[in-house]
Amino acid sequence: MEFPSKLIEDAVTEVSKLPGIGKKTALRLVLHLLKRDEDQTQTLAQALVAARTKVQYCRKCHNLSDDTLCSICANPRRDGSTICVVEDTRDVLAIENTAQYKGLYHVLGGIISPVEGVGPSDLHIDSLLQRLTQQNEGDEPVKEIILALSPTMEGDTTAFYLQKKLRPFSLRVSTIARGIPIGGDLEYADEITLGRSIVSRIAYE
Amino acid sequence: MEFPSKLIEDAVTEVSKLPGIGKKTALRLVLHLLKRDEDQTQTLAQALVAARTKVQYCRKCHNLSDDTLCSICANPRRDGSTICVVEDTRDVLAIENTAQYKGLYHVLGGIISPVEGVGPSDLHIDSLLQRLTQQNEGDEPVKEIILALSPTMEGDTTAFYLQKKLRPFSLRVSTIARGIPIGGDLEYADEITLGRSIVSRIAYE
Repeated sequence: MEFPSKLIEDAVTEVSKLPGIGKKTALRLVLHLLKRDEDQTQTLAQALVAARTKVQYCRKCHNLSDDTLCSICANPRRDGSTICVVEDTRDVLAIENTAQYKGLYHVLGGIISPVEGVGPSDLHIDSLLQRLTQQNEGDEPVKEIILALSPTMEGDTTAFYLQKKLRPFSLRVSTIARGIPIGGDLEYADEITLGRSIVSRIAYE
Repeated sequence: MEFPSKLIEDAVTEVSKLPGIGKKTALRLVLHLLKRDEDQTQTLAQALVAARTKVQYCRKCHNLSDDTLCSICANPRRDGSTICVVEDTRDVLAIENTAQYKGLYHVLGGIISPVEGVGPSDLHIDSLLQRLTQQNEGDEPVKEIILALSPTMEGDTTAFYLQKKLRPFSLRVSTIARGIPIGGDLEYADEITLGRSIVSRIAYE
Protein backbone atom coordinates (compact mmCIF):
# COMPACT_ATOMS: atom_id res chain seq x y z
CA MET A 1 0.00 0.00 0.00
CA GLU A 2 1.41 3.41 -0.95
CA PHE A 3 0.29 6.11 1.42
CA PRO A 4 -0.39 9.65 0.27
CA SER A 5 1.26 11.00 3.41
CA LYS A 6 4.34 10.00 5.38
CA LEU A 7 2.62 11.08 8.61
CA ILE A 8 -0.29 8.73 7.96
CA GLU A 9 2.09 5.96 6.98
CA ASP A 10 4.05 6.32 10.24
CA ALA A 11 0.87 6.30 12.34
CA VAL A 12 -0.46 3.25 10.47
CA THR A 13 2.86 1.43 10.94
CA GLU A 14 2.79 2.06 14.70
CA VAL A 15 -0.87 1.11 15.13
CA SER A 16 -0.46 -2.08 13.09
CA LYS A 17 2.23 -3.25 15.55
CA LEU A 18 -0.60 -3.90 18.02
CA PRO A 19 -1.75 -7.52 18.16
CA GLY A 20 -4.59 -8.47 15.82
CA ILE A 21 -4.49 -5.16 13.93
CA GLY A 22 -3.44 -5.27 10.30
CA LYS A 23 -2.59 -2.40 7.94
CA LYS A 24 -6.16 -1.96 6.73
CA THR A 25 -7.67 -1.76 10.21
CA ALA A 26 -4.85 0.54 11.34
CA LEU A 27 -5.60 2.88 8.44
CA ARG A 28 -9.30 2.86 9.32
CA LEU A 29 -8.48 3.80 12.93
CA VAL A 30 -6.06 6.58 11.94
CA LEU A 31 -8.52 8.06 9.41
CA HIS A 32 -11.20 7.95 12.12
CA LEU A 33 -8.99 10.06 14.40
CA LEU A 34 -8.46 12.58 11.59
CA LYS A 35 -12.21 13.09 11.37
CA ARG A 36 -12.58 13.65 15.13
CA ASP A 37 -11.50 16.56 17.33
CA GLU A 38 -7.80 17.00 17.89
CA ASP A 39 -8.50 16.69 21.64
CA GLN A 40 -9.57 13.08 21.26
CA THR A 41 -6.23 12.10 19.73
CA GLN A 42 -4.32 14.02 22.41
CA THR A 43 -6.32 12.35 25.20
CA LEU A 44 -5.81 8.92 23.66
CA ALA A 45 -2.06 9.47 23.31
CA GLN A 46 -1.73 10.77 26.87
CA ALA A 47 -3.81 7.94 28.34
CA LEU A 48 -1.64 5.33 26.62
CA VAL A 49 1.62 6.94 27.77
CA ALA A 50 0.28 7.41 31.31
CA ALA A 51 -0.84 3.78 31.52
CA ARG A 52 2.51 2.58 30.23
CA THR A 53 4.72 4.77 32.40
CA LYS A 54 2.80 5.11 35.66
CA VAL A 55 1.06 1.79 36.23
CA GLN A 56 2.55 -0.42 38.94
CA TYR A 57 2.35 -4.06 39.85
CA CYS A 58 0.99 -5.09 43.27
CA ARG A 59 3.98 -6.21 45.37
CA LYS A 60 1.92 -9.07 46.82
CA CYS A 61 -0.06 -10.56 43.90
CA HIS A 62 1.56 -8.85 40.84
CA ASN A 63 -1.81 -7.63 39.62
CA LEU A 64 -1.84 -4.25 37.84
CA SER A 65 -2.33 -1.48 40.34
CA ASP A 66 -2.12 2.28 40.84
CA ASP A 67 -0.39 1.74 44.20
CA THR A 68 2.17 -0.66 45.63
CA LEU A 69 -0.69 -2.82 46.92
CA CYS A 70 -3.65 -3.52 44.62
CA SER A 71 -7.24 -2.81 45.64
CA ILE A 72 -7.98 -6.52 46.08
CA CYS A 73 -4.99 -7.28 48.34
CA ALA A 74 -5.65 -4.06 50.28
CA ASN A 75 -9.32 -4.93 50.87
CA PRO A 76 -9.71 -6.38 54.42
CA ARG A 77 -13.03 -7.99 53.50
CA ARG A 78 -11.42 -10.37 50.99
CA ASP A 79 -10.85 -13.92 52.20
CA GLY A 80 -7.08 -14.22 52.73
CA SER A 81 -7.22 -17.99 53.19
CA THR A 82 -7.71 -18.66 49.47
CA ILE A 83 -5.38 -17.68 46.62
CA CYS A 84 -6.47 -18.03 43.01
CA VAL A 85 -3.51 -18.41 40.63
CA VAL A 86 -4.07 -16.91 37.17
CA GLU A 87 -2.00 -16.20 34.05
CA ASP A 88 -2.58 -12.45 33.77
CA THR A 89 -4.67 -9.44 34.80
CA ARG A 90 -7.38 -10.18 32.25
CA ASP A 91 -8.15 -13.42 34.08
CA VAL A 92 -8.49 -11.49 37.36
CA LEU A 93 -11.01 -9.18 35.67
CA ALA A 94 -12.91 -12.12 34.20
CA ILE A 95 -13.18 -13.88 37.58
CA GLU A 96 -14.05 -10.63 39.40
CA ASN A 97 -16.88 -10.12 36.89
CA THR A 98 -18.48 -13.39 37.99
CA ALA A 99 -18.83 -12.03 41.57
CA GLN A 100 -18.39 -15.64 42.74
CA TYR A 101 -14.95 -15.36 44.30
CA LYS A 102 -14.01 -13.44 47.42
CA GLY A 103 -10.43 -14.61 47.97
CA LEU A 104 -7.10 -13.17 46.83
CA TYR A 105 -5.21 -13.66 43.57
CA HIS A 106 -1.71 -14.38 42.39
CA VAL A 107 -0.85 -13.27 38.85
CA LEU A 108 1.88 -15.45 37.29
CA GLY A 109 2.54 -12.96 34.49
CA GLY A 110 2.53 -15.70 31.88
CA ILE A 111 2.45 -19.44 31.44
CA ILE A 112 5.15 -22.10 31.00
CA SER A 113 5.72 -22.42 27.25
CA PRO A 114 8.87 -24.16 25.99
CA VAL A 115 7.98 -23.09 22.42
CA GLU A 116 8.08 -19.40 23.35
CA GLY A 117 11.01 -19.89 25.72
CA VAL A 118 9.03 -19.12 28.89
CA GLY A 119 10.25 -21.22 31.82
CA PRO A 120 9.12 -21.36 35.47
CA SER A 121 11.79 -18.80 36.45
CA ASP A 122 10.19 -16.20 34.15
CA LEU A 123 6.94 -16.38 36.12
CA HIS A 124 6.03 -15.14 39.60
CA ILE A 125 6.16 -18.63 41.10
CA ASP A 126 8.82 -17.98 43.75
CA SER A 127 6.83 -15.09 45.14
CA LEU A 128 3.76 -17.36 45.40
CA LEU A 129 5.77 -19.84 47.48
CA GLN A 130 7.08 -16.92 49.56
CA ARG A 131 3.50 -15.84 50.27
CA LEU A 132 2.96 -19.30 51.79
CA THR A 133 6.17 -19.47 53.84
CA GLN A 134 6.70 -15.87 54.95
CA GLN A 135 3.35 -15.11 56.46
CA ASN A 136 3.31 -12.14 58.79
CA GLU A 137 1.65 -12.36 62.18
CA GLY A 138 -2.01 -11.49 61.93
CA ASP A 139 -2.15 -12.75 58.33
CA GLU A 140 -4.84 -15.30 57.70
CA PRO A 141 -3.15 -18.67 56.99
CA VAL A 142 -3.61 -19.81 53.38
CA LYS A 143 -5.75 -22.94 53.24
CA GLU A 144 -6.41 -23.36 49.54
CA ILE A 145 -4.78 -22.56 46.21
CA ILE A 146 -7.08 -22.58 43.18
CA LEU A 147 -5.31 -22.97 39.84
CA ALA A 148 -7.40 -21.07 37.30
CA LEU A 149 -5.30 -21.68 34.18
CA SER A 150 -6.50 -22.18 30.61
CA PRO A 151 -7.16 -25.81 29.67
CA THR A 152 -4.39 -25.80 27.07
CA MET A 153 -1.10 -27.69 26.81
CA GLU A 154 0.75 -24.74 28.39
CA GLY A 155 -1.88 -24.25 31.09
CA ASP A 156 -1.80 -27.92 32.04
CA THR A 157 2.02 -27.93 32.10
CA THR A 158 2.03 -24.89 34.40
CA ALA A 159 -0.64 -26.44 36.65
CA PHE A 160 1.36 -29.68 36.85
CA TYR A 161 4.53 -27.77 37.78
CA LEU A 162 2.72 -25.75 40.44
CA GLN A 163 1.09 -28.85 41.95
CA LYS A 164 4.56 -30.38 42.41
CA LYS A 165 5.90 -27.19 44.00
CA LEU A 166 2.88 -26.87 46.30
CA ARG A 167 2.95 -30.50 47.51
CA PRO A 168 5.26 -29.78 50.55
CA PHE A 169 2.71 -27.30 51.94
CA SER A 170 -0.27 -28.68 53.82
CA LEU A 171 -3.02 -27.01 51.84
CA ARG A 172 -5.75 -27.89 49.43
CA VAL A 173 -4.82 -27.39 45.77
CA SER A 174 -7.73 -27.33 43.33
CA THR A 175 -8.42 -26.40 39.72
CA ILE A 176 -11.45 -24.76 38.13
CA ALA A 177 -13.96 -27.27 36.73
CA ARG A 178 -13.73 -28.21 33.06
CA GLY A 179 -16.92 -29.29 31.33
CA ILE A 180 -19.70 -28.30 28.99
CA PRO A 181 -20.25 -24.50 29.12
CA ILE A 182 -23.64 -23.36 30.41
CA GLY A 183 -25.92 -22.98 27.40
CA GLY A 184 -23.55 -25.14 25.35
CA ASP A 185 -24.91 -27.90 23.16
CA LEU A 186 -23.70 -31.45 23.88
CA GLU A 187 -23.77 -32.24 20.19
CA TYR A 188 -21.28 -29.49 19.37
CA ALA A 189 -18.93 -29.99 22.33
CA ASP A 190 -15.51 -31.37 21.36
CA GLU A 191 -14.90 -34.96 22.44
CA ILE A 192 -12.14 -34.14 24.95
CA THR A 193 -14.32 -31.68 26.86
CA LEU A 194 -17.29 -34.05 26.73
CA GLY A 195 -15.08 -36.94 27.87
CA ARG A 196 -13.71 -34.92 30.79
CA SER A 197 -17.20 -33.81 31.77
CA ILE A 198 -18.22 -37.48 32.10
CA VAL A 199 -15.08 -38.47 34.05
CA SER A 200 -15.48 -35.47 36.40
CA ARG A 201 -19.24 -35.91 36.75
CA ILE A 202 -20.86 -34.33 39.81
CA ALA A 203 -23.20 -36.37 42.03
CA TYR A 204 -26.55 -34.80 42.92
CA GLU A 205 -26.57 -34.21 46.63
CA MET B 1 -15.83 -4.54 34.14
CA GLU B 2 -14.01 -3.25 37.22
CA PHE B 3 -10.45 -2.35 36.48
CA PRO B 4 -7.67 -2.79 39.03
CA SER B 5 -6.15 0.51 37.98
CA LYS B 6 -7.61 3.90 37.07
CA LEU B 7 -4.77 4.45 34.58
CA ILE B 8 -5.64 1.23 32.75
CA GLU B 9 -9.32 2.09 32.86
CA ASP B 10 -8.68 5.52 31.30
CA ALA B 11 -6.53 4.04 28.55
CA VAL B 12 -9.11 1.33 27.82
CA THR B 13 -11.90 3.92 27.69
CA GLU B 14 -9.98 6.02 25.17
CA VAL B 15 -8.95 3.07 22.98
CA SER B 16 -12.50 1.67 22.95
CA LYS B 17 -13.74 4.95 21.44
CA LEU B 18 -12.11 3.84 18.19
CA PRO B 19 -14.51 2.24 15.69
CA GLY B 20 -14.86 -1.53 15.93
CA ILE B 21 -12.90 -1.79 19.17
CA GLY B 22 -14.78 -2.94 22.26
CA LYS B 23 -13.70 -2.91 25.89
CA LYS B 24 -12.18 -6.40 25.74
CA THR B 25 -10.08 -5.71 22.65
CA ALA B 26 -9.04 -2.34 24.09
CA LEU B 27 -7.86 -4.03 27.27
CA ARG B 28 -5.91 -6.59 25.24
CA LEU B 29 -4.18 -3.78 23.31
CA VAL B 30 -3.35 -1.77 26.45
CA LEU B 31 -1.97 -4.84 28.26
CA HIS B 32 0.10 -5.59 25.16
CA LEU B 33 1.69 -2.13 25.38
CA LEU B 34 2.48 -2.71 29.08
CA LYS B 35 4.50 -5.79 28.13
CA ARG B 36 6.50 -3.95 25.46
CA ASP B 37 9.20 -1.27 25.75
CA GLU B 38 8.10 2.15 26.92
CA ASP B 39 9.55 3.52 23.65
CA GLN B 40 6.94 1.72 21.59
CA THR B 41 4.09 3.42 23.44
CA GLN B 42 5.80 6.80 23.16
CA THR B 43 6.35 6.35 19.42
CA LEU B 44 2.75 5.24 18.91
CA ALA B 45 1.40 8.22 20.85
CA GLN B 46 3.62 10.68 18.98
CA ALA B 47 2.78 9.21 15.57
CA LEU B 48 -0.96 9.53 16.27
CA VAL B 49 -0.68 13.12 17.46
CA ALA B 50 1.60 14.05 14.53
CA ALA B 51 -0.79 12.51 12.01
CA ARG B 52 -3.75 14.30 13.58
CA THR B 53 -2.13 17.72 13.92
CA LYS B 54 0.19 17.97 10.91
CA VAL B 55 -1.54 16.19 8.07
CA GLN B 56 -3.04 18.42 5.37
CA TYR B 57 -5.60 18.00 2.63
CA CYS B 58 -4.58 18.54 -1.00
CA ARG B 59 -6.04 21.89 -2.08
CA LYS B 60 -6.93 20.42 -5.48
CA CYS B 61 -8.34 16.93 -4.80
CA HIS B 62 -8.79 16.92 -0.97
CA ASN B 63 -6.73 13.76 -0.63
CA LEU B 64 -4.60 13.46 2.53
CA SER B 65 -1.21 14.98 1.94
CA ASP B 66 1.96 16.18 3.67
CA ASP B 67 1.97 19.31 1.47
CA THR B 68 -0.62 21.69 0.05
CA LEU B 69 -0.65 19.63 -3.15
CA CYS B 70 -0.74 15.82 -2.88
CA SER B 71 1.83 13.59 -4.59
CA ILE B 72 -0.71 12.46 -7.20
CA CYS B 73 -1.85 15.98 -8.21
CA ALA B 74 1.79 17.14 -8.21
CA ASN B 75 2.93 14.30 -10.46
CA PRO B 76 3.23 15.61 -14.08
CA ARG B 77 3.07 12.10 -15.46
CA ARG B 78 -0.53 11.54 -14.27
CA ASP B 79 -3.25 11.96 -16.91
CA GLY B 80 -4.98 15.25 -16.07
CA SER B 81 -7.83 14.63 -18.51
CA THR B 82 -9.51 12.07 -16.23
CA ILE B 83 -10.78 12.61 -12.67
CA CYS B 84 -11.91 9.70 -10.55
CA VAL B 85 -14.40 10.75 -7.84
CA VAL B 86 -14.20 8.72 -4.62
CA GLU B 87 -15.69 8.84 -1.13
CA ASP B 88 -12.48 8.96 0.91
CA THR B 89 -8.73 8.45 0.97
CA ARG B 90 -9.05 4.71 1.52
CA ASP B 91 -10.67 4.42 -1.90
CA VAL B 92 -7.75 6.32 -3.47
CA LEU B 93 -5.35 3.82 -1.87
CA ALA B 94 -7.46 0.87 -3.05
CA ILE B 95 -7.53 2.12 -6.65
CA GLU B 96 -3.82 3.05 -6.60
CA ASN B 97 -3.07 -0.50 -5.48
CA THR B 98 -4.62 -1.88 -8.67
CA ALA B 99 -2.05 0.07 -10.76
CA GLN B 100 -4.77 0.30 -13.46
CA TYR B 101 -5.50 4.02 -13.21
CA LYS B 102 -3.20 6.86 -14.19
CA GLY B 103 -5.55 9.86 -13.90
CA LEU B 104 -6.26 12.23 -11.03
CA TYR B 105 -8.70 11.92 -8.12
CA HIS B 106 -11.29 13.98 -6.33
CA VAL B 107 -12.06 12.99 -2.74
CA LEU B 108 -15.63 13.92 -1.72
CA GLY B 109 -14.92 13.42 1.98
CA GLY B 110 -18.12 11.45 2.46
CA ILE B 111 -21.27 10.40 0.74
CA ILE B 112 -24.82 11.82 0.62
CA SER B 113 -26.72 10.19 3.48
CA PRO B 114 -30.00 11.72 4.65
CA VAL B 115 -30.06 9.27 7.58
CA GLU B 116 -26.75 10.60 8.91
CA GLY B 117 -27.59 14.17 7.94
CA VAL B 118 -24.91 14.44 5.25
CA GLY B 119 -26.08 16.59 2.35
CA PRO B 120 -24.35 17.66 -0.90
CA SER B 121 -23.09 20.88 0.74
CA ASP B 122 -21.10 18.84 3.30
CA LEU B 123 -19.08 17.23 0.50
CA HIS B 124 -16.38 18.63 -1.79
CA ILE B 125 -18.73 18.84 -4.76
CA ASP B 126 -18.42 22.59 -5.43
CA SER B 127 -14.65 22.30 -5.66
CA LEU B 128 -15.05 19.49 -8.20
CA LEU B 129 -17.20 21.76 -10.39
CA GLN B 130 -14.62 24.54 -9.89
CA ARG B 131 -11.90 22.22 -11.17
CA LEU B 132 -13.94 21.91 -14.38
CA THR B 133 -14.75 25.60 -14.85
CA GLN B 134 -11.65 27.37 -13.53
CA GLN B 135 -8.99 25.59 -15.51
CA ASN B 136 -5.67 27.41 -15.69
CA GLU B 137 -3.89 27.86 -18.99
CA GLY B 138 -1.65 24.91 -19.70
CA ASP B 139 -3.92 22.58 -17.70
CA GLU B 140 -5.02 19.55 -19.60
CA PRO B 141 -8.79 19.84 -20.26
CA VAL B 142 -10.84 17.29 -18.30
CA LYS B 143 -12.51 14.83 -20.67
CA GLU B 144 -13.90 12.19 -18.34
CA ILE B 145 -15.20 11.90 -14.79
CA ILE B 146 -15.28 8.38 -13.36
CA LEU B 147 -17.61 7.94 -10.39
CA ALA B 148 -16.06 5.23 -8.20
CA LEU B 149 -18.63 5.11 -5.41
CA SER B 150 -19.84 2.10 -3.43
CA PRO B 151 -22.86 0.32 -4.95
CA THR B 152 -25.04 1.16 -1.94
CA MET B 153 -28.14 3.30 -1.57
CA GLU B 154 -25.98 6.28 -0.48
CA GLY B 155 -23.41 5.69 -3.22
CA ASP B 156 -26.09 5.54 -5.90
CA THR B 157 -27.78 8.70 -4.55
CA THR B 158 -24.47 10.56 -4.63
CA ALA B 159 -23.71 9.30 -8.14
CA PHE B 160 -27.17 10.38 -9.31
CA TYR B 161 -26.70 13.86 -7.83
CA LEU B 162 -23.26 14.23 -9.40
CA GLN B 163 -24.50 13.10 -12.82
CA LYS B 164 -27.11 15.85 -12.70
CA LYS B 165 -24.52 18.46 -11.68
CA LEU B 166 -22.08 17.33 -14.37
CA ARG B 167 -24.60 17.30 -17.22
CA PRO B 168 -23.94 20.97 -18.27
CA PHE B 169 -20.28 20.17 -18.92
CA SER B 170 -19.39 18.47 -22.17
CA LEU B 171 -17.52 15.50 -20.80
CA ARG B 172 -17.92 11.77 -20.46
CA VAL B 173 -19.26 10.65 -17.07
CA SER B 174 -18.81 6.96 -16.28
CA THR B 175 -19.08 4.65 -13.29
CA ILE B 176 -16.98 1.66 -12.33
CA ALA B 177 -18.41 -1.66 -13.56
CA ARG B 178 -20.64 -3.65 -11.23
CA GLY B 179 -20.73 -7.41 -11.72
CA ILE B 180 -19.58 -10.75 -10.44
CA PRO B 181 -16.20 -10.35 -8.66
CA ILE B 182 -13.28 -12.18 -10.27
CA GLY B 183 -13.06 -15.61 -8.65
CA GLY B 184 -16.65 -15.24 -7.44
CA ASP B 185 -19.09 -18.08 -7.79
CA LEU B 186 -22.27 -17.42 -9.81
CA GLU B 187 -24.23 -19.67 -7.47
CA TYR B 188 -23.39 -17.52 -4.44
CA ALA B 189 -23.77 -14.09 -6.06
CA ASP B 190 -26.78 -12.12 -4.82
CA GLU B 191 -29.57 -11.74 -7.34
CA ILE B 192 -29.21 -7.96 -7.78
CA THR B 193 -25.52 -8.20 -8.69
CA LEU B 194 -26.18 -11.16 -10.98
CA GLY B 195 -29.11 -9.31 -12.59
CA ARG B 196 -26.99 -6.21 -13.17
CA SER B 197 -24.17 -8.30 -14.61
CA ILE B 198 -26.58 -9.67 -17.24
CA VAL B 199 -28.07 -6.26 -18.06
CA SER B 200 -24.58 -4.71 -18.36
CA ARG B 201 -23.13 -7.66 -20.26
CA ILE B 202 -20.00 -7.01 -22.30
CA ALA B 203 -19.83 -8.10 -25.95
CA TYR B 204 -16.73 -10.02 -27.06
CA GLU B 205 -14.92 -7.87 -29.56
